[in-house]
Amino acid sequence: MSNIFGKIFRITTWGESHGKAIGVVIDGCPVGLKLSESDIQHELDRRRPGQSKITTARQEQDRAEILSGVFQGMTLGTPISILIKNQDARLQDYEKLKDVYRPGHADYTWEAKYGIRDWRGGGRASGRETVGRVAGGAVARKILSQVGVEIVGYVKQIGIVKCQMSKSKCQINSKIQMSNFREQIDKSIVRCPDASVSEQMIKLIEKVRREGDSVGGVIEIIAIGVPVGLGEPVFDKLSADLAKGLMSIPGVKGVEIGSGFECCEMRGSEHNDKFKVPASSAGRRPSKFKVITETNNAGGILGGISNGMPIVARIAVKPTSSIVKEQGTVDKNGRSVKIKIIGRHDPCLCPRVVPVAEAMMALVLADYYLISRMYK
Amino acid sequence: MSNIFGKIFRITTWGESHGKAIGVVIDGCPVGLKLSESDIQHELDRRRPGQSKITTARQEQDRAEILSGVFQGMTLGTPISILIKNQDARLQDYEKLKDVYRPGHADYTWEAKYGIRDWRGGGRASGRETVGRVAGGAVARKILSQVGVEIVGYVKQIGIVKCQMSKSKCQINSKIQMSNFREQIDKSIVRCPDASVSEQMIKLIEKVRREGDSVGGVIEIIAIGVPVGLGEPVFDKLSADLAKGLMSIPGVKGVEIGSGFECCEMRGSEHNDKFKVPASSAGRRPSKFKVITETNNAGGILGGISNGMPIVARIAVKPTSSIVKEQGTVDKNGRSVKIKIIGRHDPCLCPRVVPVAEAMMALVLADYYLISRMYK
Amino acid sequence: MSNIFGKIFRITTWGESHGKAIGVVIDGCPVGLKLSESDIQHELDRRRPGQSKITTARQEQDRAEILSGVFQGMTLGTPISILIKNQDARLQDYEKLKDVYRPGHADYTWEAKYGIRDWRGGGRASGRETVGRVAGGAVARKILSQVGVEIVGYVKQIGIVKCQMSKSKCQINSKIQMSNFREQIDKSIVRCPDASVSEQMIKLIEKVRREGDSVGGVIEIIAIGVPVGLGEPVFDKLSADLAKGLMSIPGVKGVEIGSGFECCEMRGSEHNDKFKVPASSAGRRPSKFKVITETNNAGGILGGISNGMPIVARIAVKPTSSIVKEQGTVDKNGRSVKIKIIGRHDPCLCPRVVPVAEAMMALVLADYYLISRMYK
Amino acid sequence: MSNIFGKIFRITTWGESHGKAIGVVIDGCPVGLKLSESDIQHELDRRRPGQSKITTARQEQDRAEILSGVFQGMTLGTPISILIKNQDARLQDYEKLKDVYRPGHADYTWEAKYGIRDWRGGGRASGRETVGRVAGGAVARKILSQVGVEIVGYVKQIGIVKCQMSKSKCQINSKIQMSNFREQIDKSIVRCPDASVSEQMIKLIEKVRREGDSVGGVIEIIAIGVPVGLGEPVFDKLSADLAKGLMSIPGVKGVEIGSGFECCEMRGSEHNDKFKVPASSAGRRPSKFKVITETNNAGGILGGISNGMPIVARIAVKPTSSIVKEQGTVDKNGRSVKIKIIGRHDPCLCPRVVPVAEAMMALVLADYYLISRMYK
Repeated sequence: MSNIFGKIFRITTWGESHGKAIGVVIDGCPVGLKLSESDIQHELDRRRPGQSKITTARQEQDRAEILSGVFQGMTLGTPISILIKNQDARLQDYEKLKDVYRPGHADYTWEAKYGIRDWRGGGRASGRETVGRVAGGAVARKILSQVGVEIVGYVKQIGIVKCQMSKSKCQINSKIQMSNFREQIDKSIVRCPDASVSEQMIKLIEKVRREGDSVGGVIEIIAIGVPVGLGEPVFDKLSADLAKGLMSIPGVKGVEIGSGFECCEMRGSEHNDKFKVPASSAGRRPSKFKVITETNNAGGILGGISNGMPIVARIAVKPTSSIVKEQGTVDKNGRSVKIKIIGRHDPCLCPRVVPVAEAMMALVLADYYLISRMYK
Repeated sequence: MSNIFGKIFRITTWGESHGKAIGVVIDGCPVGLKLSESDIQHELDRRRPGQSKITTARQEQDRAEILSGVFQGMTLGTPISILIKNQDARLQDYEKLKDVYRPGHADYTWEAKYGIRDWRGGGRASGRETVGRVAGGAVARKILSQVGVEIVGYVKQIGIVKCQMSKSKCQINSKIQMSNFREQIDKSIVRCPDASVSEQMIKLIEKVRREGDSVGGVIEIIAIGVPVGLGEPVFDKLSADLAKGLMSIPGVKGVEIGSGFECCEMRGSEHNDKFKVPASSAGRRPSKFKVITETNNAGGILGGISNGMPIVARIAVKPTSSIVKEQGTVDKNGRSVKIKIIGRHDPCLCPRVVPVAEAMMALVLADYYLISRMYK
Repeated sequence: MSNIFGKIFRITTWGESHGKAIGVVIDGCPVGLKLSESDIQHELDRRRPGQSKITTARQEQDRAEILSGVFQGMTLGTPISILIKNQDARLQDYEKLKDVYRPGHADYTWEAKYGIRDWRGGGRASGRETVGRVAGGAVARKILSQVGVEIVGYVKQIGIVKCQMSKSKCQINSKIQMSNFREQIDKSIVRCPDASVSEQMIKLIEKVRREGDSVGGVIEIIAIGVPVGLGEPVFDKLSADLAKGLMSIPGVKGVEIGSGFECCEMRGSEHNDKFKVPASSAGRRPSKFKVITETNNAGGILGGISNGMPIVARIAVKPTSSIVKEQGTVDKNGRSVKIKIIGRHDPCLCPRVVPVAEAMMALVLADYYLISRMYK
Repeated sequence: MSNIFGKIFRITTWGESHGKAIGVVIDGCPVGLKLSESDIQHELDRRRPGQSKITTARQEQDRAEILSGVFQGMTLGTPISILIKNQDARLQDYEKLKDVYRPGHADYTWEAKYGIRDWRGGGRASGRETVGRVAGGAVARKILSQVGVEIVGYVKQIGIVKCQMSKSKCQINSKIQMSNFREQIDKSIVRCPDASVSEQMIKLIEKVRREGDSVGGVIEIIAIGVPVGLGEPVFDKLSADLAKGLMSIPGVKGVEIGSGFECCEMRGSEHNDKFKVPASSAGRRPSKFKVITETNNAGGILGGISNGMPIVARIAVKPTSSIVKEQGTVDKNGRSVKIKIIGRHDPCLCPRVVPVAEAMMALVLADYYLISRMYK
């Protein structure tokens, strides 16, 4: 089992959903970065349960403690170990289901692969595992912010309710626009920047919850200020590692970069993003001028390498597998059983997956940013 | 730059589009596998240019030569080095474009990252790089076929022409069905199993070519006979590495597993695949019975681990970037220029990407199959 | 900076000498291994400071706490996070030396490389970093003990005092011999199995300490019961990874396998270990008989692969760099200074390096044992 | 089996001793390095068989052909594939021994591990495998030479004949001294810089060969001009990776850095290398002055990081395992047999291991040099 992610900037996450604690060790962080527990906490707070009426009621303060790697407020270049204690674990919710294979969950595959498993809240297969990712991502974001990279994610679709943000919205490429955009997103408990769509999404989620059911959605993640040249051709394309990182988030069934699946219905003449030199840098000497593209179907990546335009990715998040509605399944003895999963579950994963998706993008970009420094 | 793919079963590919040769070194192949050059050749022939009227006219025989790792017809467990010489390289097509950044291509990002690049046919950024992947994939398929895994890919959509194969087609889960399915696909030069849709696709491609343009599409790849238990939880999910492998193919903008982006509009009660024990193995002792699912929205993967159902993935392939139609762009001196890319290009990449996508799936599955043997 | 060791069974260690805590995360441990905190504690106790009159007086209880990866007394296959809090940190010993480059230490190279460093007790460059290795090694030993592998290390030489254990002692290849041998070692605070030599070594160490100086030595580590077939030819030879693991221990200046540097003065006819089939298995069918060697100059490894004979390695450990005797050096401003390093230091590192060296051998063997299962 | 070496600058070697060809793929080479086949050839010529009366008579021209990664005389940053065809393979020498386990060779362990093996000249277990290392090392040397790093190796001891080069010889730290030193070494067919010792060594080797026997020796490898700061603390110490790289060379039984095993008999006050600021840079502002050490017991590495002094390593090379003298062993059916290994073998491996050891040091240094650029 591999719990390590990254090449140069590597995180190792650990911890079961209902164990003593959960955490991450970050290896490969540069020296001299200002880092405090509040930097980590800020991101964990965006992910933690119990934030609003549409998320799970599990109460976890998710207090981050930095145990190593920081001295006098600065990173040492040594591994940064971050610990988060588990607190509100209700085992009784899980004990009765411990012999049953819950549909949509990893109970069966985990047991078939390993023979035993921690049935307490899904153990390591729980979404709680992403706490370590978000903590690691917070450090990655600090590295990126030093070179002007900012990342934002939002909920674009829940069920059939779509945020009709034109694709040109991928045009968010100044810090001011980014800041306004983020403000709008943060106002919405469902993390959708369009207030009226947000309203409808919340209604849909509440309806679905009342029906004892759940619903899926789409998240878009955008990075601006990304230097030209991140990513490696062939296998380690920036797009390929983003796809891996994003697809590894529990519940994700699809990943798109730029135009994504829409590219299928496009012609080359329409899909090719036209290069141009912006007026501001025209006439400069070769290698001193800037090159941009008029459209951004590429999603900021050409041939696996960032081109300086915003990186745009989208993920499809499946409806939460844990539902109250009665479902048929089998138990570990092969008997057919009916189950209702009573517990504290998000009726829609999307709002809380947003900071996780941002973290994964930050981890990939920070890693490739550090790698790119070797070419300087 | 990383030209190595895989963890245990690792391929290193090398070679520029218009260099002397192109090839792959396969490290980590098990001992005692029967392997001959014709095994490799069979797959290369499915990928090679000049196969039909709708592909590029470049003529490459793509003869595979095995230089090491095989002794008396059997693999030794040592690295298998496979060499393919380049033959039909027309430099004149490229020389005139060597100072221009072709839209949709990696010319600009490559030059910005590395300073210099091989402008002959895109050098290493060319789709020709996938020859090594297909050769490596052929060996991966041999390993998988020993345990009953078979992989097939087909073109599901070109432009707006869709193959209305119901999703239940992911129900291809016996070898007989697979064999029939493959036969239908092989009859079509566009690699679509539905004869009438295939006809329309070919017409569309020919029309687009006449217009000096190109068109995108969707490919679906299915693996049957996959043992339960491949893939690792957390970061190295089977789905995550498939996403990376597939997204690393030139031109791919999106990857879906199972329900993919359709999951967004589904309810949990609908998306959860119900487990059941098939009649054939009912009543057996625990751990001796088989578990299947009634539907396959999971695409054969739960919690990152294969569940024994067919693995189903889809990729979005962008329209070919090289088009005859006039396009505006800039050159390396920052001047606006108009270009027409005259050369030998596929008007639609899909038919030739099919064997490449199959190869990437085979590489990922073979790797995780070998890793899974450690748990036995 | 890389704080990850291993390929399949990987440890990530973290923690500064005088930070809040120190620890290790173990990734890739098989499922279903019985594991408790006392298994870890037993090894940490053998390494911890303040054990005897010849070691440092720093008092650390080094209590191991397992935070994840173990459920109901068994490993889950998920990462095992082990935490050890630091307690007895005397900063005043270090503050006055924080601007000085102590000879033999990493102060200068660390500062030249990273710009800043944790000067409290050497930070991460301290021998205290090996706590995580020993904790990880304790888990590796549990895995190995299930297949009958046992590892023992002892001090073979301190200064010019040598333990005249004939090389035939590498003939310790039964569990009974091993157990007796270990008992003799454990009786000696200097970890030398020969009681009278042990006596002399202790006298030498005490003499050196009185002189405000330190002394080096040689440690031999032996593993018995190692299955045939561990290690990979070419770069990942068992001997090569043992060399890396052992050389990475702070203070080690040389590594030998089997005959080591003595091989230089030998003839091939003398060095080649003659194969034979022991009487006990003679006459069995091919592949059912056992093959041993009469001598063990190979140290249990041929062509990088274990041959079933005891694995024998030796390391040279330099004299402790921290000495009370006055030394000349420079400070970070380039000024010549005289220093006396007053603090709590081992006058000879060897006795406490023994469990660390055993841990490194255990880590390498467990890793290759797990890898070897893929070939079954 | 792993045939990949390195982290960022990675080589994959392939090929059996008596297969069609042997080669290497170099991944991670920087862009814009001048490279031609003659750069590679120069190093291969130093390693190739048949150079002198004291080496094997096998005739291999070892012509290097660069197949990719170089365009217009410059590296592209893409993989460099280098091919060397095998020519003079005498299978009859090996066929009669194919069922016998030759003492000191990997026949038995390889067969026990893999079940089958290429018995033609040892297949991949042959020293011929090092051709790829030397070709890869030649490229590493080009990278290093750009920053002023030079590497030289020589034979320090054969049997009991020692080159009484005082350890202070590790004081070779100017390019002029290095150049003179190399000239002396190159004059000697045994690669020993002391002409009279060289004479004795050659006599010893000839005597041993007449007796149908073989002899071991010691090689020292020195790198000058190494920047301060290469290597990572903890596991990936520069010393640790040098130990791995050097120990992975066929026939090596021991590795020393700096003082090596002599450190055991030294006191701390004697072993600690005193830092000083050379007169030439005294009085400069902090971080602008140079720091050197008066002695070099550290071998240029402190805490795993290069300190700017010459890197000094030594390896023990065992006597060639293939000898004409009759030896007893067993065959694959477990029967005792007597064998005489008639063929073309080096009576002493040392002279031809020198360029291989230099190549391994170059590979490790180039890798860490590239990694170090990330910290700039």
